[in-house]
Amino acid sequence: MNLPTTRTPPVHAAMSQWQWQHGELRVGNTPVSRLAARVGQTPFYAYSRELLQARVAQLRAVLPAAVKLHYAMKANPMPAVVQHMATLVEGIDVASAGELKVALDAGANPAEISFAGPGKRDPELVQAVAAGVLVNVESLRELPVLAAASQALGLPARVAVRVNPDFELKGSGMKMGGGPKQFGVDVDVVPELLNFAAREGLAFEGFHLYAGSQNLRAESICEAQQKSYELALRLAQLAHTPVKFLNLGGGFGIPYFPGEQRLDLAPIGANLAALSERAQAELPQAHIVIELGRYLVGEAGVYIARVVDRKVSRGQVYLVTDGGLHHALAASGNFGQVVRKNYPVAVAWRAAGAAGAEEREAASVVGPLCTPLDLLGDRMELPVAQVGDLVAVFQSGAYGPSASPQGFLGHPACVEVLV
Amino acid sequence: MNLPTTRTPPVHAAMSQWQWQHGELRVGNTPVSRLAARVGQTPFYAYSRELLQARVAQLRAVLPAAVKLHYAMKANPMPAVVQHMATLVEGIDVASAGELKVALDAGANPAEISFAGPGKRDPELVQAVAAGVLVNVESLRELPVLAAASQALGLPARVAVRVNPDFELKGSGMKMGGGPKQFGVDVDVVPELLNFAAREGLAFEGFHLYAGSQNLRAESICEAQQKSYELALRLAQLAHTPVKFLNLGGGFGIPYFPGEQRLDLAPIGANLAALSERAQAELPQAHIVIELGRYLVGEAGVYIARVVDRKVSRGQVYLVTDGGLHHALAASGNFGQVVRKNYPVAVAWRAAGAAGAEEREAASVVGPLCTPLDLLGDRMELPVAQVGDLVAVFQSGAYGPSASPQGFLGHPACVEVLV
Repeated sequence: MNLPTTRTPPVHAAMSQWQWQHGELRVGNTPVSRLAARVGQTPFYAYSRELLQARVAQLRAVLPAAVKLHYAMKANPMPAVVQHMATLVEGIDVASAGELKVALDAGANPAEISFAGPGKRDPELVQAVAAGVLVNVESLRELPVLAAASQALGLPARVAVRVNPDFELKGSGMKMGGGPKQFGVDVDVVPELLNFAAREGLAFEGFHLYAGSQNLRAESICEAQQKSYELALRLAQLAHTPVKFLNLGGGFGIPYFPGEQRLDLAPIGANLAALSERAQAELPQAHIVIELGRYLVGEAGVYIARVVDRKVSRGQVYLVTDGGLHHALAASGNFGQVVRKNYPVAVAWRAAGAAGAEEREAASVVGPLCTPLDLLGDRMELPVAQVGDLVAVFQSGAYGPSASPQGFLGHPACVEVLV
Repeated sequence: MNLPTTRTPPVHAAMSQWQWQHGELRVGNTPVSRLAARVGQTPFYAYSRELLQARVAQLRAVLPAAVKLHYAMKANPMPAVVQHMATLVEGIDVASAGELKVALDAGANPAEISFAGPGKRDPELVQAVAAGVLVNVESLRELPVLAAASQALGLPARVAVRVNPDFELKGSGMKMGGGPKQFGVDVDVVPELLNFAAREGLAFEGFHLYAGSQNLRAESICEAQQKSYELALRLAQLAHTPVKFLNLGGGFGIPYFPGEQRLDLAPIGANLAALSERAQAELPQAHIVIELGRYLVGEAGVYIARVVDRKVSRGQVYLVTDGGLHHALAASGNFGQVVRKNYPVAVAWRAAGAAGAEEREAASVVGPLCTPLDLLGDRMELPVAQVGDLVAVFQSGAYGPSASPQGFLGHPACVEVLV
């Protein structure tokens, strides 16, 4: 008998990194309701030490030993997270003097900190030289400032050149190469920059290339890494001293939306192994660095909010929570997304317990703000929830509170905990 | 001779509310370069007392005297602005207990403060009763909490019913009626709510309807006001006591993007005069309230940032400023916009002066953040600017810093001044 085939709508990747017991989400080894009591308030973000460690271990298992792993702390600048990550990876990438301070306070080794950003202010450049960190130079303008700071501090500025690649990371959430860009310098400016650095006695260390971010296609990432390597190799001919640092960027994505699958690391590991082998012959002094932010922390965090009201409007169920876009802008769909889609959302704990078969319903999870933008889940199928229950927004470990308008409408700030 | 007609691209509405002298923008009576020196840093937001006053005066000139003007402080909660607005309008609308505190500190009369929000927490409801402000009830759940607070404080809670209208404000930036919504209660729930309030001795005062926001079409606003009035009139039949408060919402928009024109207030004034006259007969004890946020403050503010780098990438000019999406999320296009468009942006002051004919060029104004989202102006035609010059983003008086992720990437916070 031929039944008509019905097209199944795409679903979220399984949030298999998280444990559940008796229908309740656990973070680390703690049931989420107990964690909420420990935190003393909702909403809060919880990041799992264990999951951060597991993610780094997954990467180590496939990356060649010679490749260094850097954490781009812009993804999650919570000091405890940075401190934890500093013990797991070889280096920290910072995007401002503010982040530099957090990285140094966290005990990161200045020799393994690099500083990138298209609009570094003069005092920030001086701070970077004084800290002894590597500056990814993105403009000719930065050089005289660095030279003056080197002179004043008696400390040659450590510099790498961030190059605006002449190709893009295909299929990226955000493209950072392949056209005119505010990041890095165009290839034709590199010789002038290298000459200046040599003339002024700056300590040239290498190149930084970053072609895009939030990419789920291994072949695109491999292609961008190969092209980045080839470009760096060409540019290395222009350098007055050997390349010691070669940052091939990152761009490893995580699945946020229905239909998205986790990145396949195996081909990336193989690709980097091949590049690493070439580098041993072609750039013998260079360390290849992979810089990851979201990929390291994104899946290790969850945003927890409490249902404060359950409303039905024209037949549609609304779970109004005490959390919303003021803490979780990206999950609300208002941070860079063109078409709003739901993050994975679950009912993490029910006050009434989860005994027996779960009754499910279509419900929208919204926040307390007076704007229709404050939407965490649009008509999702969820277990029937009541006031007092806890809701979890997964994939919330990166670009959470620091990328959200916490002061919006005067609601209380969220708390962040590392568990 | 027939010349081919060329289609002129749409342009921004003239920012005619601002004064210029010798090629330099003035805020209040102060040249912007001097104001920057007084503030002591860039970036900053400057709001003009004079322009706030002028906007209220424009409204007063067309609105009937019987209509009360409320300021929805969510649009700009800077305490000095709220204090100034409290002297200009009849009431303040707050969206959280946090905003309530600012309004009370600013000296607003509690009798003329109203509190709306779809997810009011229990302690917030108690605070509102203790403050003696009007609560726009948006859920049956709020009533027992208000009744208990009334009992405990010996003070009957003042309540209005926020109704989810069964129509929308056509052509709005954000729709807040016309379908299932988390705001207010559906019409069929109103009788139960009114009965509960009467039974528990709550002080019922009236209705709140809000159909949408950021609308530039007077006829749509008039239509929504008429429908809101008719709906309130029907609902008033169900009330146990006369309606004293009738908030018909706002939704008055301001021009942000090329091709948008300022709202024509005259038909709105005429429409409200007609409704006001009907109300004198049909709801003799009711005050009609118009609640405006963005419209009152949006055009009176400007965001000032300094050019820290001027870069050319593949022929495209980038003015990298010290300001960006971390202070001005909406101007960057990342707050609710589906298609990114430029806000009006100008070079507000040039260190080299503006003598003679101005050379112009296409330039992109970007911020210092490591993300392509940090874009304040995409390939705009601007006078040629250099490092040190000041750039102004107009129409920045509403949903500025409070609606932006100030902590993003660890850059310094902006300053706000009322001039």
